[in-house]
Amino acid sequence: MKKDPTDLRPVLWREDKLIIIDQTLLPGEERYIELKNTEEVVEAIKKLRVRGAPAIGVCAAYGLYVALRERMRAGRPAGRAADAGTCFRQAFWETAAAIGAARPTAVNLRWAIARQEKVFTDAEKAGKDPEEILAALLTEAKTIHAEDEEACRQMGENGLTLLKPGMGILTHCNAGALATSRYGTCLSPIYLGEASGYGFHVYADETRPLLQGARLTAWELARAGVDVTLICDNMAQTVMRKGLIDAVCVGCDRMAANGDGANKIGTAAVAILAKEFGIPFYMFVPTSTIDLATKSGNEIQIEEREGAEIAEMWYNKPMAPAGIKTFNPAFDVTPAAYITAVVTERGIVRPPYGPGLKRIMEQYEL
Amino acid sequence: MKKDPTDLRPVLWREDKLIIIDQTLLPGEERYIELKNTEEVVEAIKKLRVRGAPAIGVCAAYGLYVALRERMRAGRPAGRAADAGTCFRQAFWETAAAIGAARPTAVNLRWAIARQEKVFTDAEKAGKDPEEILAALLTEAKTIHAEDEEACRQMGENGLTLLKPGMGILTHCNAGALATSRYGTCLSPIYLGEASGYGFHVYADETRPLLQGARLTAWELARAGVDVTLICDNMAQTVMRKGLIDAVCVGCDRMAANGDGANKIGTAAVAILAKEFGIPFYMFVPTSTIDLATKSGNEIQIEEREGAEIAEMWYNKPMAPAGIKTFNPAFDVTPAAYITAVVTERGIVRPPYGPGLKRIMEQYEL
Repeated sequence: MKKDPTDLRPVLWREDKLIIIDQTLLPGEERYIELKNTEEVVEAIKKLRVRGAPAIGVCAAYGLYVALRERMRAGRPAGRAADAGTCFRQAFWETAAAIGAARPTAVNLRWAIARQEKVFTDAEKAGKDPEEILAALLTEAKTIHAEDEEACRQMGENGLTLLKPGMGILTHCNAGALATSRYGTCLSPIYLGEASGYGFHVYADETRPLLQGARLTAWELARAGVDVTLICDNMAQTVMRKGLIDAVCVGCDRMAANGDGANKIGTAAVAILAKEFGIPFYMFVPTSTIDLATKSGNEIQIEEREGAEIAEMWYNKPMAPAGIKTFNPAFDVTPAAYITAVVTERGIVRPPYGPGLKRIMEQYEL
Repeated sequence: MKKDPTDLRPVLWREDKLIIIDQTLLPGEERYIELKNTEEVVEAIKKLRVRGAPAIGVCAAYGLYVALRERMRAGRPAGRAADAGTCFRQAFWETAAAIGAARPTAVNLRWAIARQEKVFTDAEKAGKDPEEILAALLTEAKTIHAEDEEACRQMGENGLTLLKPGMGILTHCNAGALATSRYGTCLSPIYLGEASGYGFHVYADETRPLLQGARLTAWELARAGVDVTLICDNMAQTVMRKGLIDAVCVGCDRMAANGDGANKIGTAAVAILAKEFGIPFYMFVPTSTIDLATKSGNEIQIEEREGAEIAEMWYNKPMAPAGIKTFNPAFDVTPAAYITAVVTERGIVRPPYGPGLKRIMEQYEL
């Protein structure tokens, strides 16, 4: 029996336990570990054992529940005179603060914690007891989980309408199942297509300096049985010129109101090459990353990371002269003019993006 | 006193000794080693202690001389009845064959050995004795050395007419002093400009998978006091968009009659980006690499190298899944349409390249 290519789930809720794939061991080993308390949840997020904005959000929502449950099971700390309700309330806010601070810039992390805080506050107001509140927190975590999985599946269904069986597809960085609950964003149509026998040929940019393409994208696609070929970033031009690429599919970290999309460094160069060769360039953009308050890509601040990632990381010995000056932007902005279509879970947006993005966002805010 | 930025010489003839920089120790250590016999010369070329087509040619020409001299000093092998002249002749052809075969595809290596073979044959015909022939071989090696240095300097002078003080310059791979006798090809105008206080700002692509930009270009520019910033290949778009780049200078491994130029993988992508941003793209092409018998880039065979260079090399542990499929072309072809000017030691060629390249080649063949 053929393996289900969509079965990879980096965050699992199984037998009342929070289980994650330890992504720091990839691509060498697929090991699942349980997170049982605040310390373990915070450490897993900090050390990138779980990564990718949606996956972090789901993990944090469950993590807050298991951490709080563990504290309650451990019982009231000795020497505290407060009643059970006060203790529970204090434990909740302490745990929420600790997990919410695990990574400073992860938007989905704070968003997931905020959803749990609202559940907690509402339940307290309704006079529920700790057991009932814990149950409500678990339900909310499961909801966040299911919503993310469904959004990714829907993005895949939408994206698949743009692709044809046998196509060669170039991707950059990792916007795959490992970054979400399941399916991924830009890899979602590839998995859904694979499940229907589309037989795509995927080319994965290794994505320097952190090699997410080599370590994660190549791993999860190969694991699913998808035909995947790893290339260095500077080889994208060659595979395009050889006629091996019919479409480019990439993710998005933040999209401005005009359709300019920030994504992993190197994405904009791939978009320029695709345009030069007349290859469609599709950006997969969960509506949660569309920011209508940002007018254009010029307003998006690009994080600059330490030069050691270029000059030293991964290596047996430094591969550049000691003290060499480096420039290490983590993202770049692909101007809207290079984006053939924006794929969201609510549908596909075509240029001009200004009105299109506005419409798709308003449609659910009524 | 300010250091001379053009003082780097990877191959030296000093006090009757052949000295090279051991490039396998770069960028960590600048160590000079002597090559004393056939085995050491062959090993140095094979192990890339000396690399870059022109530098290999110069090293081979001197190497043949020192190896032969060493054999003659060691005396006639015991048990051989042949006379001194026969022994010397046999030693020459054995040594020439051994050094000529050190690297299978290095054009300049075979070319340099062929020049020494002609010197040997002519000297024998003229009835010269071994001492005189050895002297002639040393003279020819010095001539090859001086010619290469002068060609590189001239290429730099020509290239410098295209550049202005304070410019930002992007380069890819290593076509620097380390690859030649001195100055390099595309880095030559940068060194000459630096010596005249031009104050260029150079951005060096690291050049995956073998990282020649990080290990060699960044090292030799920083050593010369040139302001150099190391970036990953996929960041070239960002530095161009930020307005940091006024010109792109790259080398060339082989140029077809129509101006299509093969160079290190990634060069063609840089050319497409440069065109998109309206930045001039200059290819530095020694006339020895212009091949009028090749009509266009389509006829140039591109070497494909082993995938381990992408998936494993340099790393503490493999950075891609075991057994992952890879595509690892070593070069790509930049179509003539993307090349603003071709800089040779004989002058600058502008489009249309067909007649221009023909003229510059014929001009010396009359």
